[in-house]
Amino acid sequence: MARWEPGARERLEQAALELFGEQGFADTTVPQIAARAGLTTRTFFRHFADKREVLFAGEDDVPQLVAGYLAQAPADETPMQLIARGLPVMATRLFDGRRDQLQNRHRVVAQDDGLRERDLHKRAALSDQIRAAFQARGVDPLTSTLTAELAVTVMHTSLTRWLARNDDRALADIVTDTLTALRTLASDV
Amino acid sequence: MARWEPGARERLEQAALELFGEQGFADTTVPQIAARAGLTTRTFFRHFADKREVLFAGEDDVPQLVAGYLAQAPADETPMQLIARGLPVMATRLFDGRRDQLQNRHRVVAQDDGLRERDLHKRAALSDQIRAAFQARGVDPLTSTLTAELAVTVMHTSLTRWLARNDDRALADIVTDTLTALRTLASDV
Repeated sequence: MARWEPGARERLEQAALELFGEQGFADTTVPQIAARAGLTTRTFFRHFADKREVLFAGEDDVPQLVAGYLAQAPADETPMQLIARGLPVMATRLFDGRRDQLQNRHRVVAQDDGLRERDLHKRAALSDQIRAAFQARGVDPLTSTLTAELAVTVMHTSLTRWLARNDDRALADIVTDTLTALRTLASDV
Repeated sequence: MARWEPGARERLEQAALELFGEQGFADTTVPQIAARAGLTTRTFFRHFADKREVLFAGEDDVPQLVAGYLAQAPADETPMQLIARGLPVMATRLFDGRRDQLQNRHRVVAQDDGLRERDLHKRAALSDQIRAAFQARGVDPLTSTLTAELAVTVMHTSLTRWLARNDDRALADIVTDTLTALRTLASDV
């Protein structure tokens, strides 16, 4: 057997999501996922630490993307300008063209307490990483914390709205709408 | 033995926080907590479902407080006005005068992965409840979601800042500062 199967990772992801949807996350085993993908269990473990990681591995490069974006941004851009420019770019790069897959993932995560807590944990960790990246730019701690929380909230809210739709509106446009709603809300005192 | 011990709940909370701090959350048992408080294990279980609940029980009435506040608020107040008026009131009512205890709790939760995830879970549930309360006032779903997330973010950020301080500044004042920072940030595009 070849040590490297072309497209193995994607086939495993696809097989896992199918099986989680059909028979539930808890009742699905790694050998079943590997068999559905036409691969071996060993190949599965070359790509993922466990079946849970199939659902979360896609987010692993987000902190690096964010850090790279902030490192090359003009020094005089304000935190909110950075978010307004960066979030639609991230949306397109990370999620566009993957809505069906993300909808399936969303349904699986929503049905399992442990997966929901893992999701919240990943979101909190991402917020921490964004906060640190803003502080590294010289932004004060309070503004860095709030900016990071706003960025994660806007992206998460937009993703949820996008996944609930059935038309072909781009996620980036929904992100822009959410940012506008946030600005209107926050300035209204 | 009397079925009802006066101040039992507070004594159990105090004993639990002391023991969690001294020997760690994982290594502390319910019988140890009861013994330190001079009470029986049965009395413990009349007040808390398990040792974890000692750390989270204080938040159980928050959703009810929020719902009550929103139900009696003037119909023409905007979501952000409601937050700006309500959060300092909640801060005083829920947390003032309890900083030492909350600092101990904060340290315990920070050291245990399971407790941190439970904390995130409670925060997400609270945000959901606030969102529902705003929708019940007739606020649109997107604004309700963002308002709820902002409220929880502002309170959590303010609490974290307050617990890190060593002076006697009131939490309500820190909440007001955080709200000002948020408004400045969100309007700066």
